[in-house]
Amino acid sequence: MSTNARDASAHLPVLPGLMVEDAVRAALLEDWGRAGDITAQATLGPKVSATAVIAARTPGRLAGLDLAACAFRLSDPAIRVEAVKADGDRLSPGDVVMHIAGPARGLLSAERVALNYLGHLSGIATATGLFADKVAHTSARIVCTRKTTPGLRAFEKYAVRCGGGANHRFGLDDAVLIKDNHIAVAGGVASAIAAARRFAGHLVRVEVEVDTLDQLREALEAAPDVVMLDNMAPAMLREAVAITGGRVTLEASGGVNLDTVAAIAETGVDLISVGWITHSAPVLDLGLDIVIA
Amino acid sequence: MSTNARDASAHLPVLPGLMVEDAVRAALLEDWGRAGDITAQATLGPKVSATAVIAARTPGRLAGLDLAACAFRLSDPAIRVEAVKADGDRLSPGDVVMHIAGPARGLLSAERVALNYLGHLSGIATATGLFADKVAHTSARIVCTRKTTPGLRAFEKYAVRCGGGANHRFGLDDAVLIKDNHIAVAGGVASAIAAARRFAGHLVRVEVEVDTLDQLREALEAAPDVVMLDNMAPAMLREAVAITGGRVTLEASGGVNLDTVAAIAETGVDLISVGWITHSAPVLDLGLDIVIA
Amino acid sequence: MSTNARDASAHLPVLPGLMVEDAVRAALLEDWGRAGDITAQATLGPKVSATAVIAARTPGRLAGLDLAACAFRLSDPAIRVEAVKADGDRLSPGDVVMHIAGPARGLLSAERVALNYLGHLSGIATATGLFADKVAHTSARIVCTRKTTPGLRAFEKYAVRCGGGANHRFGLDDAVLIKDNHIAVAGGVASAIAAARRFAGHLVRVEVEVDTLDQLREALEAAPDVVMLDNMAPAMLREAVAITGGRVTLEASGGVNLDTVAAIAETGVDLISVGWITHSAPVLDLGLDIVIA
Amino acid sequence: MSTNARDASAHLPVLPGLMVEDAVRAALLEDWGRAGDITAQATLGPKVSATAVIAARTPGRLAGLDLAACAFRLSDPAIRVEAVKADGDRLSPGDVVMHIAGPARGLLSAERVALNYLGHLSGIATATGLFADKVAHTSARIVCTRKTTPGLRAFEKYAVRCGGGANHRFGLDDAVLIKDNHIAVAGGVASAIAAARRFAGHLVRVEVEVDTLDQLREALEAAPDVVMLDNMAPAMLREAVAITGGRVTLEASGGVNLDTVAAIAETGVDLISVGWITHSAPVLDLGLDIVIA
Amino acid sequence: MSTNARDASAHLPVLPGLMVEDAVRAALLEDWGRAGDITAQATLGPKVSATAVIAARTPGRLAGLDLAACAFRLSDPAIRVEAVKADGDRLSPGDVVMHIAGPARGLLSAERVALNYLGHLSGIATATGLFADKVAHTSARIVCTRKTTPGLRAFEKYAVRCGGGANHRFGLDDAVLIKDNHIAVAGGVASAIAAARRFAGHLVRVEVEVDTLDQLREALEAAPDVVMLDNMAPAMLREAVAITGGRVTLEASGGVNLDTVAAIAETGVDLISVGWITHSAPVLDLGLDIVIA
Amino acid sequence: MSTNARDASAHLPVLPGLMVEDAVRAALLEDWGRAGDITAQATLGPKVSATAVIAARTPGRLAGLDLAACAFRLSDPAIRVEAVKADGDRLSPGDVVMHIAGPARGLLSAERVALNYLGHLSGIATATGLFADKVAHTSARIVCTRKTTPGLRAFEKYAVRCGGGANHRFGLDDAVLIKDNHIAVAGGVASAIAAARRFAGHLVRVEVEVDTLDQLREALEAAPDVVMLDNMAPAMLREAVAITGGRVTLEASGGVNLDTVAAIAETGVDLISVGWITHSAPVLDLGLDIVIA
Repeated sequence: MSTNARDASAHLPVLPGLMVEDAVRAALLEDWGRAGDITAQATLGPKVSATAVIAARTPGRLAGLDLAACAFRLSDPAIRVEAVKADGDRLSPGDVVMHIAGPARGLLSAERVALNYLGHLSGIATATGLFADKVAHTSARIVCTRKTTPGLRAFEKYAVRCGGGANHRFGLDDAVLIKDNHIAVAGGVASAIAAARRFAGHLVRVEVEVDTLDQLREALEAAPDVVMLDNMAPAMLREAVAITGGRVTLEASGGVNLDTVAAIAETGVDLISVGWITHSAPVLDLGLDIVIA
Repeated sequence: MSTNARDASAHLPVLPGLMVEDAVRAALLEDWGRAGDITAQATLGPKVSATAVIAARTPGRLAGLDLAACAFRLSDPAIRVEAVKADGDRLSPGDVVMHIAGPARGLLSAERVALNYLGHLSGIATATGLFADKVAHTSARIVCTRKTTPGLRAFEKYAVRCGGGANHRFGLDDAVLIKDNHIAVAGGVASAIAAARRFAGHLVRVEVEVDTLDQLREALEAAPDVVMLDNMAPAMLREAVAITGGRVTLEASGGVNLDTVAAIAETGVDLISVGWITHSAPVLDLGLDIVIA
Repeated sequence: MSTNARDASAHLPVLPGLMVEDAVRAALLEDWGRAGDITAQATLGPKVSATAVIAARTPGRLAGLDLAACAFRLSDPAIRVEAVKADGDRLSPGDVVMHIAGPARGLLSAERVALNYLGHLSGIATATGLFADKVAHTSARIVCTRKTTPGLRAFEKYAVRCGGGANHRFGLDDAVLIKDNHIAVAGGVASAIAAARRFAGHLVRVEVEVDTLDQLREALEAAPDVVMLDNMAPAMLREAVAITGGRVTLEASGGVNLDTVAAIAETGVDLISVGWITHSAPVLDLGLDIVIA
Repeated sequence: MSTNARDASAHLPVLPGLMVEDAVRAALLEDWGRAGDITAQATLGPKVSATAVIAARTPGRLAGLDLAACAFRLSDPAIRVEAVKADGDRLSPGDVVMHIAGPARGLLSAERVALNYLGHLSGIATATGLFADKVAHTSARIVCTRKTTPGLRAFEKYAVRCGGGANHRFGLDDAVLIKDNHIAVAGGVASAIAAARRFAGHLVRVEVEVDTLDQLREALEAAPDVVMLDNMAPAMLREAVAITGGRVTLEASGGVNLDTVAAIAETGVDLISVGWITHSAPVLDLGLDIVIA
Repeated sequence: MSTNARDASAHLPVLPGLMVEDAVRAALLEDWGRAGDITAQATLGPKVSATAVIAARTPGRLAGLDLAACAFRLSDPAIRVEAVKADGDRLSPGDVVMHIAGPARGLLSAERVALNYLGHLSGIATATGLFADKVAHTSARIVCTRKTTPGLRAFEKYAVRCGGGANHRFGLDDAVLIKDNHIAVAGGVASAIAAARRFAGHLVRVEVEVDTLDQLREALEAAPDVVMLDNMAPAMLREAVAITGGRVTLEASGGVNLDTVAAIAETGVDLISVGWITHSAPVLDLGLDIVIA
Repeated sequence: MSTNARDASAHLPVLPGLMVEDAVRAALLEDWGRAGDITAQATLGPKVSATAVIAARTPGRLAGLDLAACAFRLSDPAIRVEAVKADGDRLSPGDVVMHIAGPARGLLSAERVALNYLGHLSGIATATGLFADKVAHTSARIVCTRKTTPGLRAFEKYAVRCGGGANHRFGLDDAVLIKDNHIAVAGGVASAIAAARRFAGHLVRVEVEVDTLDQLREALEAAPDVVMLDNMAPAMLREAVAITGGRVTLEASGGVNLDTVAAIAETGVDLISVGWITHSAPVLDLGLDIVIA
């Protein structure tokens, strides 16, 4: 494992162990149904042991080691797991990420859950990394959205971090995001922001979405913390950056893909939000190779 | 809505209401955190009402209506939802799938959860439909795998059905699937299948995975219910079909994509399993357009 | 412990540890209420330790050791449990099945839950064993039904296996069982079976219930996997076996008791389902004898 | 329904609706697994409706109507249920206890759970009733024990009441029951009772178990609320009643069956506890007859 | 109810109904134990109905109406509840806040849970209101802390709002609060704030705690969003306000009570945090008067 | 720790470990939200360790050590906790109650939950102790009520015991408490008590509330276990004691505070119930002092 990768992971968030355990426990029970792994029970004696490695089959970024390790440990406490990569590491095909050893039945019964978590989250980290690499020459950062898979938001937000991205709000309660409908009812951008400031605590930030430069100018008067520039082409984004003059954080949103993201980043916006990295990233192909003894 | 689509949906499975409600309840609480939708609370009065439609923005297949409707209903029982499409329906851009009307706060607070379910499951249905359409001229059917998102397996399996696919086993407990490691420990294909038959109940089917035609011949001697032909090229699959002579169901697995699936189907195999449709299908782009009154 | 018993247990299913723990945890909390074992707290100091054995008081078959052991371990992690019999073993009066040692309060607080599980499941294993012994000279196997105690199905199905029986389907979702009402609506046996085949995945078996030999002949045309012969006398069962000629698995159901089961088995049916073994088996009398030190 | 039965039910406990709903919800999900009732889905269209009755097939006492009704209602809120008997009623073969009408799929999907609860609890009520009838000419009452099925204690205790029995403590926390091991550590009956009185609240009763008349005399000195006379023959019980002279409530325990219970009751004891009525009562045979329209 | 109170409540947060229901359901089950309200069952027939009012016995501020109403509704859906005050309203002794009517058993079974929630939360609102009134002539606002009762944080934070206070962060995840230990490890205020900015998303605010004016000056260099001035006397607070010059939000903390809070507020700080309002507020005395018919 | 304190704790109840763990797990997740302690993650490396003590800042009685210790252990299993005081001990300012050592992140992430439990429960123990000390020269005991914080009843009842008080009933199901409304419907005190005796099991006590001496006399005729004397002045209480003559346990209720309690106790009543000790006790001020290494 490269020293750089290690350094990177020092800045990564930590998934609380209780959350990991609750999630993995539910996932194992989902896969085991009412009778557990009947194939392993039928064909493998209780004394058969196995060793295995999980390795990458395509290049990517790693995320989800704790969940995978927890799956094996909960399946059979006698299983030993040793991670040889860290979440956030870049992987090349063939790179081993984890060694597993213990009773074969327990190991095989946890394989799919471990790989489903690891592949899904590493897929998100990999997708995020692709975008992050495209904007690495700028000061812009890639951020995620609330377009996540139900039940997995905390883990998917973590995977975005593993891929070099940053996190938008985690839910409807931890930041204000004012959109056109809110503005319409509230009677304008200024009154919407004022209402939000009055309502929300002093540790809650307020972001407002605008579609035009006029709306941006109006919003800036009301001094939100962040302005989301929705579906603006690079030229307009550049103008928005100039108008803003560093007074607030600017987030570009809409029309972002791997072909457009660099140009968007070069406009000087601070953040670029991408729903695709959580809602549509393909899994990273990781496989488990097992030796039964 | 076309009559054909309706007919199709008559054959679809039904998601039990209790499961839908439990899942949606958890998803709403995930999004609401500790304080709910603070933006809506700050900017919209409790008396403000709204109407909305959910419509497709790209072509695809629909899945997840019950989950989306449940999100609005649980958010505020005063919200009325009317579906105008059915799960399994083919969608064109602009097609409206659902009307929603009621208190604006509750409607907006449920929007993201409803769309996250609908987009994710319709994405799977759409992906499945792409594969199913490619093999529609053959007798082969597309089936899913256990490579699903933790916590969502029952819903993802349902979405595969909505897209015209069929379901593989739902977990480790409802069918036997013997792979090379099981065979190695059990002492050969025949003894592994015999062990499975002895172990499993009379309503449990036994499938065995083979890599070569010799293994296929050996497996056929032991009379499993299904043989999975792993990573075989079309020519070898065709030979496998000939060897089998209809004695067991044949499932092709591995190397399946939209370019290869038709050729695989034309070999005469009964089933083609595709992990991609559940683990990597991008969401279907559906949007909610709201009118606040 | 006899070598035979050990061999038998090598073929037994395994109760996943996570399921055992969840169930036992709930059972302990049910017994402890809000304040735990107030008698032990009032009369025994925290330092008092005890040793105990659990022994059979009447002959029977053992099932549920993992649940009993888990009750003591969850009650106080300092308690040590050593099983000296295995699930599936035949027990004579006086046979010790388990040694327990540790803090007296924790041991006594778990006693009833441990015995309630062990007695209930061993009762089912014993009842199943009585039937299984009666048909041991034939090729018929005793199978259970869905007439189980709510919340305990997986454990009760396991206990049936410990008693030498086999398992029918675990729920409404893992196999198709077509009865007269389904046939009536579907328009006949053939169309009902065809509908089931179309609907269910390739790893799902289809069973159909028939009351008469004419229905059996009609059903055989449609090639189900299993036919249930409902409430037929031995003579008619024998005829059904002849008509079937080994084409499908035959299950006899109805009117089965310890007096009739041998004659039913001798007709040549493959399976005999008995609701009584799960819904009405009396507990096996097992007692805990404690020495407080 | 007889007026007497009605009167009896006026004194019955009430199962809190929230508890009933939680239990039935879990039982339905246990039976439905991941995909629900696939037979009904495959063979019955969503528009098919049905009417049904649940009727007794053997004589007995009814218990569990609320749980059965809840199963149908949770399965499909469109199902209408009308009970025509009340819990506690005596049933003759053929007596209808409940009418059910609504969508056929939902009705069939809930049938087994409804019958499993109703049969199990009515079985306990019936068994209790057999004992209660044997002692009706005395002042003794039949009481249950903590030998219940894990997870079902509150319902089983309720069923005992429906059969004419009374309830012992519900768990380890709501009354003190001092046995020989507690006495040994506490240093005698008197000090054990004193310790219990000091420890327990003023609304907690203290019962002590004795094996001999000398122990009884010693216990009476310490003035417990209840003395359990363990495994005493009727002659000795009669003597115990005389010794006690009405100072405390007396409970006979051990060696109680339908042949011995009358003689035990005639000794003058107040209560006779019977584990068999909860741990080993066979189900009452109730069937659901359905008409699909 | 005064119009002012109504207006105030228009700005109040909304407790999501799903959260309310989950909490109240658990509280009812906690109070009902295994057998429900045995006093009501024993003494009141199922047909007895009742009407009741909940009224204040001492002056205060109201909070928790939804929870109280939910308790009655979950106890028996036939109970009708009509609130005549709104959360946030000021109450005088005798003021009726709620009318309740329906079956007497269900009403009495929910009384304590309803009052426990209402008294506890109104106690917090009342305590908050006492502080808020003391600072009403200044621009300072009263804010709560994380010193809440385990399991009740969201409701207690809501009650603070009902009393005229504002909310600090809801947990460890929705804002950064840097204290001395963090600073020591991070190598100074500036590097700690920089680390937090790098780590946290763009919608997360950063607060830092300082004990001295030198620390304040150092902190201001690093531009946090909020500075907490810990345990400073009014004179020093006033100086801190001067030094800060409006660049960041200032929160005073420590040594705050009803005697000191006005002087603290008059120093010009923006926020004053008070642990006492959530961790030590006495209940507001509200009573339920019932008429049984 | 004084020997006396230890002796006292030998008589204390024990909080079952499973209950402690479930509660603390929920409390940690409440505080951690979706992302855990982001301040600690941002500023402290994963290798930083810390030692800490929890000490009293004001005098009081200790309760809740197991909950506090569990919070640290669940936060990070590598944390070591050593209690140096026992629940029930009297504390002076500065008294250390617990040493904690381990990874700094995990320790800080659990600090608030540990202190919230410890402060809340010790506050109740302290408040109870104040009352208990006032009546120590009499035979009266202080008892709690059902006026507890939703979700915390078992813990709060435990804390009352730690402070030297005794427990009233834990819920609506473990004892009968007849009030005026029940009496009115039942047709008088005698018939209400008779109904309760008939309804409740032999291990359930019956208490009845009276407001006047006439009602007391009427109640005594019916021989309840306990009579609650509601809102009577000391003179009337004394007369009630005389009338009762030791026939039943007497509980004084209403108008109890630290100024009146001694006079009430001196009337000769057995029990004095105080709602304030659970519903309004301020927290005990305990602090955690940390040294990060």
